[in-house]
Amino acid sequence: MVEAKKYIYDFSEGSADMRTLLGGKGANLAQMWKIGLPVPPGFIITTEACHKYWEEKDFISSIWSDVEAAVARVEELAGKKFGSSQNPLLVSVRSGAPVSMPGMMDTILNLGLNDDTVAALAKSAGDERFAYDSYRRFIQMFSDVVLEVDLDKFEERLAQARENAGVKEDYKIPAEELKKLVVDYKKIVEEAGHTFPSDPWVQLRLAIDAVFRSWNTPRAITYRKINNIPAEYGTAVNIVTMVFGNLGDDCGTGVCFTRSPSNGENKLFGEYLINAQGEDVVAGIRTPVPIASLEAAMPEVYKEFHRIAKLLETHYRDAQDIEFTVERGKLYILQTRNGKRTASAAVRIAMDMLHEGLIDAETAVSRVAPEQVEQLLHPQIDPKAKRNVIVKGLPASPGAAVGRVVFDADEAAERGGKGEAVILVRPETTPDDIHGLFAAQGVLTSHGGMTSHAAVVARGLGKPCVSGAESVKIDLAGGTFTVGGVTVKKDDFLTLDGTNGDVILGKMELIEPQFDENFRELLEDADKISNLQVWANADTPEDARRARSFGAKGIGLCRTEHMFMAAERLPVMQEMVVSTTTEERVAQLKKLEVMQEEDFLGIFEAMEGLPVTVRLLDPPLHEFLPKIPELTKALEGLAPESAEAKKINATIARARELHEQNPMLGFRGCRLGMIFPEIYEMQARAIFNAACKLTKKGVRVIPDIMIPLVGTQEEMKRMRKLVDEIGAAVIKENGVALEYMVGTMIELPRAAMVADQLAEYAQFFSFGTNDLTQTTFGYSRDDAEGKFLGQYVEMGVFEENPFARLDRDGVGALMEIAVGKGRSVRPEIQLGICGEHGGNPSSIAFCNKLGLNYVSCSPFRVPVARLSAALAALGVLK
Amino acid sequence: MVEAKKYIYDFSEGSADMRTLLGGKGANLAQMWKIGLPVPPGFIITTEACHKYWEEKDFISSIWSDVEAAVARVEELAGKKFGSSQNPLLVSVRSGAPVSMPGMMDTILNLGLNDDTVAALAKSAGDERFAYDSYRRFIQMFSDVVLEVDLDKFEERLAQARENAGVKEDYKIPAEELKKLVVDYKKIVEEAGHTFPSDPWVQLRLAIDAVFRSWNTPRAITYRKINNIPAEYGTAVNIVTMVFGNLGDDCGTGVCFTRSPSNGENKLFGEYLINAQGEDVVAGIRTPVPIASLEAAMPEVYKEFHRIAKLLETHYRDAQDIEFTVERGKLYILQTRNGKRTASAAVRIAMDMLHEGLIDAETAVSRVAPEQVEQLLHPQIDPKAKRNVIVKGLPASPGAAVGRVVFDADEAAERGGKGEAVILVRPETTPDDIHGLFAAQGVLTSHGGMTSHAAVVARGLGKPCVSGAESVKIDLAGGTFTVGGVTVKKDDFLTLDGTNGDVILGKMELIEPQFDENFRELLEDADKISNLQVWANADTPEDARRARSFGAKGIGLCRTEHMFMAAERLPVMQEMVVSTTTEERVAQLKKLEVMQEEDFLGIFEAMEGLPVTVRLLDPPLHEFLPKIPELTKALEGLAPESAEAKKINATIARARELHEQNPMLGFRGCRLGMIFPEIYEMQARAIFNAACKLTKKGVRVIPDIMIPLVGTQEEMKRMRKLVDEIGAAVIKENGVALEYMVGTMIELPRAAMVADQLAEYAQFFSFGTNDLTQTTFGYSRDDAEGKFLGQYVEMGVFEENPFARLDRDGVGALMEIAVGKGRSVRPEIQLGICGEHGGNPSSIAFCNKLGLNYVSCSPFRVPVARLSAALAALGVLK
Repeated sequence: MVEAKKYIYDFSEGSADMRTLLGGKGANLAQMWKIGLPVPPGFIITTEACHKYWEEKDFISSIWSDVEAAVARVEELAGKKFGSSQNPLLVSVRSGAPVSMPGMMDTILNLGLNDDTVAALAKSAGDERFAYDSYRRFIQMFSDVVLEVDLDKFEERLAQARENAGVKEDYKIPAEELKKLVVDYKKIVEEAGHTFPSDPWVQLRLAIDAVFRSWNTPRAITYRKINNIPAEYGTAVNIVTMVFGNLGDDCGTGVCFTRSPSNGENKLFGEYLINAQGEDVVAGIRTPVPIASLEAAMPEVYKEFHRIAKLLETHYRDAQDIEFTVERGKLYILQTRNGKRTASAAVRIAMDMLHEGLIDAETAVSRVAPEQVEQLLHPQIDPKAKRNVIVKGLPASPGAAVGRVVFDADEAAERGGKGEAVILVRPETTPDDIHGLFAAQGVLTSHGGMTSHAAVVARGLGKPCVSGAESVKIDLAGGTFTVGGVTVKKDDFLTLDGTNGDVILGKMELIEPQFDENFRELLEDADKISNLQVWANADTPEDARRARSFGAKGIGLCRTEHMFMAAERLPVMQEMVVSTTTEERVAQLKKLEVMQEEDFLGIFEAMEGLPVTVRLLDPPLHEFLPKIPELTKALEGLAPESAEAKKINATIARARELHEQNPMLGFRGCRLGMIFPEIYEMQARAIFNAACKLTKKGVRVIPDIMIPLVGTQEEMKRMRKLVDEIGAAVIKENGVALEYMVGTMIELPRAAMVADQLAEYAQFFSFGTNDLTQTTFGYSRDDAEGKFLGQYVEMGVFEENPFARLDRDGVGALMEIAVGKGRSVRPEIQLGICGEHGGNPSSIAFCNKLGLNYVSCSPFRVPVARLSAALAALGVLK
Repeated sequence: MVEAKKYIYDFSEGSADMRTLLGGKGANLAQMWKIGLPVPPGFIITTEACHKYWEEKDFISSIWSDVEAAVARVEELAGKKFGSSQNPLLVSVRSGAPVSMPGMMDTILNLGLNDDTVAALAKSAGDERFAYDSYRRFIQMFSDVVLEVDLDKFEERLAQARENAGVKEDYKIPAEELKKLVVDYKKIVEEAGHTFPSDPWVQLRLAIDAVFRSWNTPRAITYRKINNIPAEYGTAVNIVTMVFGNLGDDCGTGVCFTRSPSNGENKLFGEYLINAQGEDVVAGIRTPVPIASLEAAMPEVYKEFHRIAKLLETHYRDAQDIEFTVERGKLYILQTRNGKRTASAAVRIAMDMLHEGLIDAETAVSRVAPEQVEQLLHPQIDPKAKRNVIVKGLPASPGAAVGRVVFDADEAAERGGKGEAVILVRPETTPDDIHGLFAAQGVLTSHGGMTSHAAVVARGLGKPCVSGAESVKIDLAGGTFTVGGVTVKKDDFLTLDGTNGDVILGKMELIEPQFDENFRELLEDADKISNLQVWANADTPEDARRARSFGAKGIGLCRTEHMFMAAERLPVMQEMVVSTTTEERVAQLKKLEVMQEEDFLGIFEAMEGLPVTVRLLDPPLHEFLPKIPELTKALEGLAPESAEAKKINATIARARELHEQNPMLGFRGCRLGMIFPEIYEMQARAIFNAACKLTKKGVRVIPDIMIPLVGTQEEMKRMRKLVDEIGAAVIKENGVALEYMVGTMIELPRAAMVADQLAEYAQFFSFGTNDLTQTTFGYSRDDAEGKFLGQYVEMGVFEENPFARLDRDGVGALMEIAVGKGRSVRPEIQLGICGEHGGNPSSIAFCNKLGLNYVSCSPFRVPVARLSAALAALGVLK
């Protein structure tokens, strides 16, 4: 006989290492129970039950007797009875996935209340107001989450109750008024076509069902998609004895971080509300007070909490985010988890804990998420600029943001999605606004604290956020907000400083950030762990210097075409393109050569002692010519026989000749070098002359010359020969010793398939995964993103745009073939990647797996890449 | 001690199976020697010596003593002495590669003559005229081939000699005149900066050198490229005792095929010239007489020749091409080889020999080259049309050609290369004209017989040729030719009938050819041998019927987009494309559905009982809209508010919206089906409705529905579901039993890499190698061919354009991956190819190797493909 699977665990049966099965919340509750902390009794229905729920129609029935048995054990521990009209047990029912998904999953509190038990609760608590307040909260929450009744009706009726009672805060509504409210709430439920279940067991069953159901709501799916959380995880259900923070002024509830989630400072950082339930804090409806003031209000409780906070931090070896409730002076810990934090907090906490000896370097490095790191490099407002601060809110997520005011999340999503800079302004945000937060530059809310929804989400996304700017009066319908006599309209420019809470009218100049010492140290630790080096893509001496300052160990891609686009050079380039004979072309190339040499002198000098990979001309020549309509226009009014008209006509003719149906697949890359070798010869000469001049001055130059768009062995063979011949001549002329390599981009599927043939002549490969993605998928990036790729991501064809995250099955599989074939012929071949994927953490993890030597990315992504490389080496990033 | 390599073989040391080492000519000479035929004594320097010659600077010196020894052995057999002023041995020096390259390699006759030996020759032959004629020929030939002196000067001087002598034919020039000619010829050589070598050994050495050198002349390289002959083969050198066909009227020389090279008829087919050397026949300067007349002229010789011809044919089991010379009544065989022949001759000879029991079916099938077969399907002049025949020449290569008259090979190459139909008209052609022959529709020559250069090359290329139309007077400088009072100018239209020799003024209508019984039988034999089926690409019932008549076993690609291009449909299609809502789109699609159903009814009926693979809509939607400039033009003069103007403006707006940078990589294929599923739903409905209607009528329909441009599993999954849902509904509605499959094209590198994922939903794969070649190489076919691909082929980057011959290393390697992955998931998966490569012999051989189920090609290529498939199965085609 097969033993029945265990789907239910009491707290006493679990521990922190069971988070896959019990969810993060449940595993931590069990762990805290184990180490003797004051956790209310409860049990957990596992994530495996969630899978079963989605597979089997009537799964809950099959485990119902186990649920009843578990409730009975909790009754015993709590000394209360579920559904009892004497001493009723009330429970919370909360979701808890293996990975924290704040605000995404539904929670029900005070479950077990009905017209009987509420009276008993009133009696046992000695507080009728408290009991009916709990009851009306429960009906409201249950109706919303389980029965899906529109909340507005409840809020309307609640506002009316406040009015009837002549009070402003909910907690001041008297019991009599609350009793009427309960009656009317039930009517609202009935009008919506439901009957509110009075049987607590029915309530429990429906609540469990709702938690499981909530795993696949659109907002949960969106959150998972944004955060790359697999749908297979599932959620557990935590059923915990209720404790009450709203029994009077010796009660309260709060959340607290053991270190600052904003900057990482090592002191308690939290907020609480007197006489409230937890939802009041999180929802941001009332603005809570700092945790420090708890010391004065309840000194014993504060001392105990402080002890527990430090204990948990030491226990978990990480900064904790703790939920607690004080019921009539007794402290309960309701939840602990590793606290979400900003990038700079993450860095500081990691390095502090490393220095405190709490964790080792590998752990410290793995405490910072690569996605977060970029925000450390987010621009800040120029400190010298004058600020027109119209209000100061809470500094809820650091960094500065500039954009046009938008009041609607959908509009923010739409305009932001198109690349417009917008600032989302809301009274508060809810999980339904997440797409707007995602697309906005920053968020301003008039309500809510540092732990409000907007603040938590913004920090997670690395977006600046100012929250709780209470004096801001928002007129959503009118599309304006007013503060201190200033009215700001939709589309006005606004600047937010999420680091100090400033809200500034107008568009401020932003400046580049600087590394702090902690971060520098962390990245140095990361470098020691990594297998991959991080190089940068840089086309100018300035970019090269920035890349180097961010820790780049070389230039993986120096594009030469941008050099020809400068105002004084373009006309010469155009003359070259229009040339019809080799002689004319060579004459123009001579002029360009002088300029190219200057460029290389600058870059090589900036990268002294480090390799610089120079890619020879890549784009089709017509890109350098003006567009034909422009040229036709320029002809107007010119005498047809004038020299100028003739010149323009020649340019038009050449532009027509060079026109292509599909320039992406056209006459570009080394195809230019094959047909017009004089162009590549000029570039090679400029590179070698620059390198030799610097070598003479004692500057060490390591040039790697990269041939673009190679698809056949013959191309590689000829281009290698071309470069080597120029190299030999120039080096001999200069009488210096100079080592260099000639290699190729692997950016065509064919190049990957014949990589063994290419490696006979190529001394290095650099994966050009932008183009390789285009050709492997047959997607023109310019066309696809607007036309169907966005929809493909929405439809779930891709988890993420393959131009952002490397497609392992297709592009990656080709890379793997190329690596194997390349090494089979030239075991020591240098391998790197210079597509944009070189700065993407998942893609870097893949490159680590392939055993590449380096990834190369834009200078600003270098720190992200350095950290990602370490995490990949540690196996944290896969 | 390593034994010295043997580079020289006497005829007695070789045999027919040594053609790689001895060349075809040498191996056959040795073989004939072996079986006792009258071959003049000689020896062969091997093809390995040719390699050595190109590797080692002074290779000839190293084998010189062996050459001397071989000459000594020949002297003994011939009873003559090389360089002797008494009884001089004269030899021919001829090239001979393992594969015949007619007219490509250089030959020198009469080597050994000088001022001394010529006198001895005159004496021993008793004919001074003959001796000096041989001498002057030798000087001329040697100077041309070895010393590279311009021939024109010699021809001028020769014409003057004829004039001096008052004769019209060279062989009538008297000895005294020839003596002067010899003196002047030597002067011409001196004026050109050379000294004519009088030492026969020096002559021999320079001649050997020239033969080896000739292996890498531009014209030899061009010929090899066209005929896919590897450069590694090399040529052997045949040194053979001279026999003379020009000693008088009991002498002669000729070439003879054992069966007709034109139509395969089993009788001797040849030509000879009395009192001439072989070059006179081949060069086409004098028009020879038919072999049959030899019977009357020299009955004994004819009888002996006939015996030898049949002997050789039985010996080699193939029709032979024999060169012979009669010296004073004695027959010598100078060469035998398998005769080149037209396609229809090849077919007839093969089937006749099969029926005669000389060969088996496998051999018969492998006697026809796939490249030749297409010419059997070449159009013919409508037999009912009235012909304006201006002259009749020799029917040198069958089929009909129409084009504009061009007199220059370069011009023919240039204009023909651009796709213009031209007819090359020349007095005669030389190997230097080959590029013109290649690009022309057909060739007309005023001189030369059925075995002249023009005739041989044209037959090889499958081009119609009329040769030896002697009454045609060509004025090359004036750009006209005149015949029977008619003057034809350059660029006038001319029609050639190469099957009967008619030259027709003007542009005749051509009609499709019919299979003959031999060919039908051959292809049926081929089908029995093949592993691959041959299907066809056909979009209309007419195409489908033609494909079936050519033996196609299914439709591998039925494109649906052409159906929308018809005049009455395009406006509806355009309305559909311009639609901005799904409803509008669906309304237009309803109209299109009716039309689509009609199309499928026709095709399915034509292919009754055979599979029809229908590809759903593939091209980007903007292809169906007029171009924007056209639309803008159409706006002119319209009131801006008029309904028409509004409609045009809407179309312009939509066209702009749909515009793409790289349409090849854009919003097309199943991407359309994913975003606008209603389009594919309509097509699926039309297919299923048509299939069900015919099924009800008892017609067996086998529809395979093909999804284009799939790159991800999700696309395949959704499109399969879409088709299956429509299929289930329509089949149920109609209450019939209908089996069908849903599959995909593999035309993106990613599709190949994830073929296992696709095969979970795809029931068949069809390799779309046109697009797969584009994406694998990153070549836009439209752009690449004109811009660089042509030059790439010339530069040797590719042996052949990869759009014509499948690139095995890149595209083929991806196919191999896809085949393996596809079968790993679905072992019975149906695999085919529907790119243009499906009709290309080398590509078919590759498909055979991959184990595909079928190749699909254009209806006219079906016979080529059937034969290729058999040859691939036999291992003849690799």
